[in-house]
Amino acid sequence: VASRLPQLGTTVFSVMSALAQQHGAVNLGQGFPDFEGDPALLDAVDRAMRSGHNQYPPMPGAPALRQAIAAKIETLYGHRYDVDREITVTAGATQGILTALLAVVHPGDEVIVLEPAYDSYGPNITLAGGTMVPVPLDPHTFRPDFERIRAALTPRTRVLMINTPHNPSGNVWTADEMRQLAQLLDGTDVLVVSDEVYEHMVYDGQQHQSVARLPALAARSFVVSSFGKTYHVTGWKVGFVAAPAPLMAEFRKVHQYNVFTVNSPMQVGLAAYMADPAPYLGLSDFYQRKRDRFRAGLAGTPFKLLPCPGSYFQCVDYSGLPAPLAGMDDMALCQWLTREAGVAAIPMSAFYSTPASTGGRPSIIRFCFAKKDETLDLALDRLRKLP
Amino acid sequence: VASRLPQLGTTVFSVMSALAQQHGAVNLGQGFPDFEGDPALLDAVDRAMRSGHNQYPPMPGAPALRQAIAAKIETLYGHRYDVDREITVTAGATQGILTALLAVVHPGDEVIVLEPAYDSYGPNITLAGGTMVPVPLDPHTFRPDFERIRAALTPRTRVLMINTPHNPSGNVWTADEMRQLAQLLDGTDVLVVSDEVYEHMVYDGQQHQSVARLPALAARSFVVSSFGKTYHVTGWKVGFVAAPAPLMAEFRKVHQYNVFTVNSPMQVGLAAYMADPAPYLGLSDFYQRKRDRFRAGLAGTPFKLLPCPGSYFQCVDYSGLPAPLAGMDDMALCQWLTREAGVAAIPMSAFYSTPASTGGRPSIIRFCFAKKDETLDLALDRLRKLP
Ligand SMILES: CSCCC(=O)C(=O)O
Ligand SMILES: CSCCC(=O)C(=O)O
Repeated sequence: VASRLPQLGTTVFSVMSALAQQHGAVNLGQGFPDFEGDPALLDAVDRAMRSGHNQYPPMPGAPALRQAIAAKIETLYGHRYDVDREITVTAGATQGILTALLAVVHPGDEVIVLEPAYDSYGPNITLAGGTMVPVPLDPHTFRPDFERIRAALTPRTRVLMINTPHNPSGNVWTADEMRQLAQLLDGTDVLVVSDEVYEHMVYDGQQHQSVARLPALAARSFVVSSFGKTYHVTGWKVGFVAAPAPLMAEFRKVHQYNVFTVNSPMQVGLAAYMADPAPYLGLSDFYQRKRDRFRAGLAGTPFKLLPCPGSYFQCVDYSGLPAPLAGMDDMALCQWLTREAGVAAIPMSAFYSTPASTGGRPSIIRFCFAKKDETLDLALDRLRKLP
Repeated sequence: VASRLPQLGTTVFSVMSALAQQHGAVNLGQGFPDFEGDPALLDAVDRAMRSGHNQYPPMPGAPALRQAIAAKIETLYGHRYDVDREITVTAGATQGILTALLAVVHPGDEVIVLEPAYDSYGPNITLAGGTMVPVPLDPHTFRPDFERIRAALTPRTRVLMINTPHNPSGNVWTADEMRQLAQLLDGTDVLVVSDEVYEHMVYDGQQHQSVARLPALAARSFVVSSFGKTYHVTGWKVGFVAAPAPLMAEFRKVHQYNVFTVNSPMQVGLAAYMADPAPYLGLSDFYQRKRDRFRAGLAGTPFKLLPCPGSYFQCVDYSGLPAPLAGMDDMALCQWLTREAGVAAIPMSAFYSTPASTGGRPSIIRFCFAKKDETLDLALDRLRKLP
């Protein structure tokens, strides 16, 4: 059978998790916590299952959950989405992104992706019949370069994809950058798909800059987020998308014929649990402590720590490691670390569409610090013992 | 924003459920049970949640669930699918079907759909860049017409979609029809997407004819099924797809960038529950009694019962109702029934791509009998009181 995605193998996250398991390595690769969600959340889901929430919920999602999402966005970012027409619960953020692209990208349309970028974006664009136009982030700061974005805009540009807090770099857009983006897109009909799944992991007193904060951006954006990241239940596969009604109408045309709707007891349980904002408001503090523990543990090793203002990923430059490690490409180094040092990581190159596009900085790998302290300590022990 | 699916509104199932709710009608429209799944199944899911199954399961699905699916298919249909490479758990059957089409349909390819057909197939084909080629089933028996299918085959035909037991007609393919299909496709490279979500609802001693029973068909088919239908938990959105390894490899390339994977506690709970085959082996008896109750209740009314050898849908011809009801189109009649008689149904025309394609039999509506006996009795009371 002729492939629709001929270049594509299995996603690097699955590959590295399998390798980690095979070698008994501490898995700091694929982004998921090794600790459990709040028992109160599990209780809420169990109550939903036992009280008759096991048949199709409404196609856009359980009303109580959409209500809770809208209230949260309004409180935190000041934008009021219509509960009935502007919010849809998805089977995870990735399904939300693919669905948005299928809904608005026409064959031949261009979609700008700021690289490095999550590895699903490119295949998602291909499946929607679009052409991916990669634009590099600054290779040192991972900040958006608005001149390069402007230069990439053409009459065929349908969508710009952005992601803050950023996977893999952890970079967090500033309010000023958001305003620059709004200005740049002013007068165009370019839509924005804004991947904000790490919205509640922003450190050192900074704030998450959702596109929902700026009316000019909210009006052209699909905001995508995930409960799996926020509530430590990545395996539940529940996320959401918020967008203005005309965009959401198109989104739902596709959504209803993709998954139709999303697991009902999970939705009803999440809605009840969201009544208390403390878990997501406290998440930045929770993960900042883990970030600091991990960074402190790597201080004094040849790994050079990149800044980590957000997300649960810490990137390091390994070009200071002794030979031959420093000279390995990042995939080879990740495999070596998994096999020989017992710690799995993700190579930065997996987030670029071509090897040439890394801007001359290929010696970076990504660790996930969403782990129990003892897991982090074990990994650090191993990393500190490197030759 | 320019629509990718300009003709499309909200799926008829959502529309009729909303209308039913608005008018307090008994909802025999959208196909879902109004009773609960087995408490033992809910217990199994709860146990999975409490025992650490809340992070990403492997991308193709929880190994125990794929194992249970493979064992069931081998026992019932005699085909051995490889657990690791040939089975993938999906977020419902619809996601499985869209994903299969996105994986193998290239822009401009033709996909044959036997009409009447489930309303997601057409938009799924459009989203995959394909062209839908509708071929009518026999308008009286809803049996496949192999000469018409043969006539529709072209060098661009990539996929033939089939569905047995059939939604909406309830028709069940015979072993001989399956052999004819295998013969017809022999020597072509046409793939089959076989929607078998009602596989465990086949009545009067007949047997479900899965494409998995015939090696020549299994070799070119995606078999799609659903736990929601089988276990009375339509809101869980868990299904699966089985296909030969080369097809499944392409399927997973898309799957990993659509939903990535499926709700973990549901998968682990379903795997445990599947150890006992009694629930699905007993399902045909369970629903046959409901079918018989519903048919008995409509006997002697002007509704003419069509045969119902499978599925949980009973179609009726309403052309014998008094004027003006008999003269209404089927959508208008369903709306009238919902509003005025307090019973919601689904119009047969919703399963055709064009009004002209119904083969001159537009006066058919579909009732879902997956309901408590008292629900069926209440609906029957109301239907028997029609003017
Ligand atoms: C879907 S598996 C990948 C999880 C993740 O978001 C990451 O590791 O970047
Ligand atoms: C996804 S809602 C439709 C349920 C169903 O399969 C039907 O009613 O035909």
